[in-house]
Amino acid sequence: MRASELFGKTLRETPSDVDVASHSLLIRGGFIRVVSAGVYSWLPLGRAVLHRIEGIVREEMESSGAQEILMPALMPKELLSSTGRWEGFGAELYRLKDASGRDLFLGPTHEELVTSLASSDLNSYRDLPLVVFQIQWKFRYAARPRGGLLRAREFPMKDAYSFDADEEGMRRSYEKMVSAYQRVFERCQIDVRMIEADPGVMGGGMNQEFVLPSADGETDFVECENCGYTANLEISGMEGKPCPNCGGKPATRRGIELGHIFQLGTKYSEVMEAEFLDRTGKSTPYQMGCYGLGISRMVAALVDSYHDELGIKWPRALAPFEVVVLLVSQDSLAMRAAQKLYEELENKGVSAVIDDRDVTAGVKFADADLIGYPIQVIFGKEFLNGRIELRTRSTNDSALAAPSVKSVREALASCL
Amino acid sequence: MRASELFGKTLRETPSDVDVASHSLLIRGGFIRVVSAGVYSWLPLGRAVLHRIEGIVREEMESSGAQEILMPALMPKELLSSTGRWEGFGAELYRLKDASGRDLFLGPTHEELVTSLASSDLNSYRDLPLVVFQIQWKFRYAARPRGGLLRAREFPMKDAYSFDADEEGMRRSYEKMVSAYQRVFERCQIDVRMIEADPGVMGGGMNQEFVLPSADGETDFVECENCGYTANLEISGMEGKPCPNCGGKPATRRGIELGHIFQLGTKYSEVMEAEFLDRTGKSTPYQMGCYGLGISRMVAALVDSYHDELGIKWPRALAPFEVVVLLVSQDSLAMRAAQKLYEELENKGVSAVIDDRDVTAGVKFADADLIGYPIQVIFGKEFLNGRIELRTRSTNDSALAAPSVKSVREALASCL
Repeated sequence: MRASELFGKTLRETPSDVDVASHSLLIRGGFIRVVSAGVYSWLPLGRAVLHRIEGIVREEMESSGAQEILMPALMPKELLSSTGRWEGFGAELYRLKDASGRDLFLGPTHEELVTSLASSDLNSYRDLPLVVFQIQWKFRYAARPRGGLLRAREFPMKDAYSFDADEEGMRRSYEKMVSAYQRVFERCQIDVRMIEADPGVMGGGMNQEFVLPSADGETDFVECENCGYTANLEISGMEGKPCPNCGGKPATRRGIELGHIFQLGTKYSEVMEAEFLDRTGKSTPYQMGCYGLGISRMVAALVDSYHDELGIKWPRALAPFEVVVLLVSQDSLAMRAAQKLYEELENKGVSAVIDDRDVTAGVKFADADLIGYPIQVIFGKEFLNGRIELRTRSTNDSALAAPSVKSVREALASCL
Repeated sequence: MRASELFGKTLRETPSDVDVASHSLLIRGGFIRVVSAGVYSWLPLGRAVLHRIEGIVREEMESSGAQEILMPALMPKELLSSTGRWEGFGAELYRLKDASGRDLFLGPTHEELVTSLASSDLNSYRDLPLVVFQIQWKFRYAARPRGGLLRAREFPMKDAYSFDADEEGMRRSYEKMVSAYQRVFERCQIDVRMIEADPGVMGGGMNQEFVLPSADGETDFVECENCGYTANLEISGMEGKPCPNCGGKPATRRGIELGHIFQLGTKYSEVMEAEFLDRTGKSTPYQMGCYGLGISRMVAALVDSYHDELGIKWPRALAPFEVVVLLVSQDSLAMRAAQKLYEELENKGVSAVIDDRDVTAGVKFADADLIGYPIQVIFGKEFLNGRIELRTRSTNDSALAAPSVKSVREALASCL
């Protein structure tokens, strides 16, 4: 990609109405634009980051055995009426009527629809267990959305649902999802805590949140610095008490819920009469679990975790492009060499941007730091000596090297 | 994928309220389920087909130079008010209020938002031309949706938008999109006609539809069987007249509009004051184009084009899985060999299903024909002679071969 053609400008100033670093940096870097409070458009850089996260989530869901489906955003009122959530969701639910006067809503989540879908296709214990997932847009009204992508009104989410014949099976499916989540966060290099949480409007039994420690968060929890024990502050009643695990003194912390997983039991299946025939031929409601993961929240969490005063420092696996080729010399040989290396990188599968804009070197450096490409390949004055500078954004270390794909690959290999 | 674990059952009977073959076959094959009139859930097989089409569309858009973005479904009334389309869309538009009383709508298309987005980031002639695209869900109310996926109320669409400095540039962008569409249809093996069409609520000048000839369609057009000339019947006034190109006698035909592309000119940019500074420093509205492609309509068009009385015959590039391994022998050696070949196929990157269900051979054959995997790999009585049967769904030809990945690959290579 040529920076001169890339859609989305960088901004020098922090936009107004912005209360967290990720929100400011994502707007300033040209990743997102505000449509209205809590509703965003994703520009090419932001769309690319979403694709990276979606790819990792999809791979880990599939390798856990979950199957991908896609349910609609627009659903009939009857689905939520059947479980009492048409009222239960309160102001958070977007309700509407179509031109024929039929009551509809925009999915804040999909428990009712997936339960109804399952009941038409899972008729026997032989059809269980099953885990399905989708990556789909959710709609939740918040009176005063804050934290940028952390509390949006329309946002992409991965939601998975498990169906089992008995409680033991449900717990096994739940544990599989815990492992899949841990692998997703590990690959995305987000250092989350898993804490017991409040089920809220979802209901059901055991549930846990994946929380990234951050002063901007909305969840208070205790964490034992000795043994790593964590618990939701309110639910556990742990404030000021010693760690039940090791007797140590837990610290109170705050943290951007990224994921929330629930053992629902028969809460939905019973009231919706979603049943299968068990081994004895008896009609039995499914034992269910549901598993949410905020894709756009993960974008925000990444930026909150990886940035400095100059801009974003994307981990390599999540960066919109791995490399930026910075052409800061006016020398025509350097220009040709930069162009050649850029093309070779693209051909060899290294995703790269060449900053070919007619702007000063200072602007190019500032934008590269702001956008946060993991490696900056600098064609500057050292090129007269046949060398380029390879700067690693995460550490700000730089080294001189020969202008080759191999040098760039080596620099990338040393990145996070 | 094991058929015993695949979510989504096949149905023997044609569902009620179904008026086209694709709708019936996609429900019976376990690709989609009806949520309410015109609103669908996509089961794993259907989701996989969507992914295949999305992949091809994305590749061809990107290779034409278009950049991927993502705009929200939920937008404020003001956007449509600015161009008169809040009323203009009539009953087709889903309107709603959030809990604060603010008027919103669900995007039937995104001209206004993309124009506003462009005007914040495209300030100079140096920023032009630009083509952006998204793959996003659209919402359009139809009083009596018919044709299944051909006229859904919520459906995935690829929509692209071009911004140019002058009319000549706009026409160049338009031609580039025509080429990209032609490549998409060619790769998807959909034999469309490009005809001049009615701009409808979109407005603007020159516009063309990509239409698949089908008796179930809603668009009437004339086609000269001598020279291939096509035109919209109503707009061209061509009914009963000789072909203006060769003097031949055009036939009247009907066809599921799959794509519709428009030269919009300054229709949106002028009224929304979306302008750039031209070479002389003068504020000038963009010359725009917009380019729609119905992703789920393409699924329906494929099935309408490729099926027989037994079921679907997916072209290889679009099939949810390329191969089904049919275990129809009770012989334990055959069972082991089938399992082994299935695993080898998966390891070698051939997407495969093994039908390991405890059902009769007849049911397995019927389901394989209905779902439409391009190649059926049959472990039957010939396995005693060390051979498997390779059946090509599109032609119903079959041949005996050694049970190896190589044989399967060769059979696949001969598919469409």
